[in-house]
Amino acid sequence: MLLLKLDEKNRKPQYQQILEQIRQKIEEQILLPGEKLPSTRRLADQLAIHRSTVATAYQELWSLGFVDISPGACPRVRDRAQIATSANRTDTGLVDWNEIASPATNAVWQTYLFQPETSLPSNSSCINFSGVDIDYRLFPLDNFRVCLSRAVRQQGPSILGYGHRTGFLPLREFIAHHLKSHGISVTTDEILITNGLQHGIDLVFRMLAAPGKTVALESPTYKEMIPLLRFCGLTPLEIPIRENGMDLALLAEVLQKERPALVYTMPNFQNPTGISTSQTHREQLLSLCERYRVPVLEDGFEEEMKYFGKVMLPIKSMDKHHLVIYCGTFSKVLFPGVRIGWVVAEKQCIERLTAIRRFSELSSSMILQAAIHEFCQNGHYDRHISTMHRVFRKRMQAAIQALHQYIAPEWADWSEPSGGYLVWLKLKPLTNPPDWESVLVAHGVQALPGNYFFFSETSENYLRLSISKLNEEEITEGIKRLANALQTIYTGE
Amino acid sequence: MLLLKLDEKNRKPQYQQILEQIRQKIEEQILLPGEKLPSTRRLADQLAIHRSTVATAYQELWSLGFVDISPGACPRVRDRAQIATSANRTDTGLVDWNEIASPATNAVWQTYLFQPETSLPSNSSCINFSGVDIDYRLFPLDNFRVCLSRAVRQQGPSILGYGHRTGFLPLREFIAHHLKSHGISVTTDEILITNGLQHGIDLVFRMLAAPGKTVALESPTYKEMIPLLRFCGLTPLEIPIRENGMDLALLAEVLQKERPALVYTMPNFQNPTGISTSQTHREQLLSLCERYRVPVLEDGFEEEMKYFGKVMLPIKSMDKHHLVIYCGTFSKVLFPGVRIGWVVAEKQCIERLTAIRRFSELSSSMILQAAIHEFCQNGHYDRHISTMHRVFRKRMQAAIQALHQYIAPEWADWSEPSGGYLVWLKLKPLTNPPDWESVLVAHGVQALPGNYFFFSETSENYLRLSISKLNEEEITEGIKRLANALQTIYTGE
Repeated sequence: MLLLKLDEKNRKPQYQQILEQIRQKIEEQILLPGEKLPSTRRLADQLAIHRSTVATAYQELWSLGFVDISPGACPRVRDRAQIATSANRTDTGLVDWNEIASPATNAVWQTYLFQPETSLPSNSSCINFSGVDIDYRLFPLDNFRVCLSRAVRQQGPSILGYGHRTGFLPLREFIAHHLKSHGISVTTDEILITNGLQHGIDLVFRMLAAPGKTVALESPTYKEMIPLLRFCGLTPLEIPIRENGMDLALLAEVLQKERPALVYTMPNFQNPTGISTSQTHREQLLSLCERYRVPVLEDGFEEEMKYFGKVMLPIKSMDKHHLVIYCGTFSKVLFPGVRIGWVVAEKQCIERLTAIRRFSELSSSMILQAAIHEFCQNGHYDRHISTMHRVFRKRMQAAIQALHQYIAPEWADWSEPSGGYLVWLKLKPLTNPPDWESVLVAHGVQALPGNYFFFSETSENYLRLSISKLNEEEITEGIKRLANALQTIYTGE
Repeated sequence: MLLLKLDEKNRKPQYQQILEQIRQKIEEQILLPGEKLPSTRRLADQLAIHRSTVATAYQELWSLGFVDISPGACPRVRDRAQIATSANRTDTGLVDWNEIASPATNAVWQTYLFQPETSLPSNSSCINFSGVDIDYRLFPLDNFRVCLSRAVRQQGPSILGYGHRTGFLPLREFIAHHLKSHGISVTTDEILITNGLQHGIDLVFRMLAAPGKTVALESPTYKEMIPLLRFCGLTPLEIPIRENGMDLALLAEVLQKERPALVYTMPNFQNPTGISTSQTHREQLLSLCERYRVPVLEDGFEEEMKYFGKVMLPIKSMDKHHLVIYCGTFSKVLFPGVRIGWVVAEKQCIERLTAIRRFSELSSSMILQAAIHEFCQNGHYDRHISTMHRVFRKRMQAAIQALHQYIAPEWADWSEPSGGYLVWLKLKPLTNPPDWESVLVAHGVQALPGNYFFFSETSENYLRLSISKLNEEEITEGIKRLANALQTIYTGE
């Protein structure tokens, strides 16, 4: 017989006391799975309470999984499912995620696993020319921290809510204003703030994605681009890049024959080649796309980083017919950690991108957008750009000088960029090219071999040097080490 | 004849002086499009400088788009593309974005345009039961601001860089630790931090997406879910939700016949019905999915908000065979503005989701993750949950009391939730149901009609009341107004 005791002085309701006592007896295995509890009538009589109180307790015990209830019968103690712990969890799962995931996902996952950042040894004594992330030492941390705190205080609690779907309005106003200095004149509803530039590109690709669609782009190109295109179900059409930019004769042919859904281009300091196209090239590319009515996706990832010669205006600045989707970012001149970029396009296009963003993640954080706006509004952004120009003008000069001094013309060629962080070394042909990554690491230096940026086979050997996170001393020493590595390979010494 | 003057005292290089003077003449239309410039030899002779200096200036003029150069001929002034300004931009673009965008994008865009938040009039005198965003007045702004500032200072500049791809490690450690209190025991590499919960769902859908795949889910459900599913190319299989949760007999049938790629469920305070399933229901659902080896996507969006009765453990807590993908968020108990959620799943699954995130937006912001970690680490999170329970226990009691007091049983039924923010009113049948949104607004109250949550036709009428942003007084007054609206419709008074 089930012995329960109600305590009148206890502030807990009676049903709760019954529930807890039965629960305890089940957990202590005084009541065993399969055992019957008394009927609501019997237990109510026994405790001199109303039947509905017992029924409530039983209902809750059922809901918590301690008893089974079937109509007309007394409740029975259940064999409750155990909590999964590291001890009782199986090592291998019931499903193979390779089968659950789509082939496109598995392909992108394979690419991810073999990304240089994951496959390269992390060696702190190496001088690292690999990534295009900026030297932490240049981050204006203190100014940003003050702006962050001030923005949160000024905006008040609403800044912690869901924000405007196309982004913090004052920041869009700042971007619209700032773009004027690059010849782009747009309204705030032609701007969508994104989680960095790549997020903008993903939104554009998702907007287009449909079976059979193609996208024309430079080859070599940013190494994330082709995996992303393919993941989105789009087919890349690679147009070789020449000394002056994408081969326009080939592009014209492709536009006519293949009718791609989009032309993707990086007119400034193209990644990985560092090439900036001329005004004429930009005009011709736009006019070709106008002729075939194919939108242009212009990647202005380092728009601000022209520090030699005059600023070249983006293609978007000449876009009278709303054909260009322009993407920008704070990551490559300020810092990437706020994850703030923007897409600028005709309102009809922005609305569609916003709808995709809405359903895929509701909205982006207003906190960091308000902080960056505060930062820009106070002139810190313009001052930081000046600093970056001054610093990287010197660093790039040091790189060019070291290349001239240490790298023999029998080993490699390169062209001098007019800004940005990249130098693209064309290595002289070798009958048996080595595994460049290991050779370099053995000499205390890291850089990305060209094959990361080509998606079709190429017999040419390149190295991409990024000076984005190195100072002059490190650059010079790094190029010396690179020279040693090249010497070993080319002269066998 | 072109008259140029070199100034020896000018610190600018000679090629720059030539460039600027020619450029000025072109801009002032002294030199007109089509006009020839002197050959490099002639201009060099004339200025008594080296030919290569002139060639450099010409090259730069070409690059800036001021001249055309063809081999063997003198440069000619170009008809330079004008900057697109609001004055010379065409009103309509060259392309129709409806044709550029995929049908799936246009569908999601249409849904977006007719979302209640965009279509409802914003009326500040209305009492708003529409959204599930939390009362700003409860946001722990000051504590968060201190943690934000402290986190940025403690972490130093690296916090402004690209972060770890699966999220800030100390935050993943906190989440792993916190999930233990919900019976879930996982390691940090089974956790991926996302931009809010919906981003996690989007990643899971993108991982699965392949032609012909289906997803089983409750009907009615969260109104963003089916548009997102369809946008991702997945077909929804709607399983009606009964008083106790998803109809498991129907689910079993669907699992057997349709073999969906996934079962999506919200076991706690289901949106929109407010229903929480019992332990038994959870066990049965899991065991069904185990039998058919179909992964479960468990949406724990309000896991913390059980404030009546005992906490019910999530399905993931019983998942011995790594079948459950669990999504959580800070948005529905703390605030949504940090855009931080998490996905918990077997490592093989997390790696694939991480790869998709990697290519679609590189990484998420570490700044806010570090701030939230600081906030949690200092006990603010646990204290905030207690406050929320205390506040919403009272608010929900006020809502239930007002419903009993003002809403006649001839107008509507409802069930009492055990937590969360939602009450689901089932309205009594009407021969000519009115446009509920207008009727309510006319009575100074807003709530979402049930049809937003059903994707197949239904003849039943519901209203979803969310108390998430209202205090007791507002709730009581709002329900009074609702009662007036119902009275008008049901009694014609």
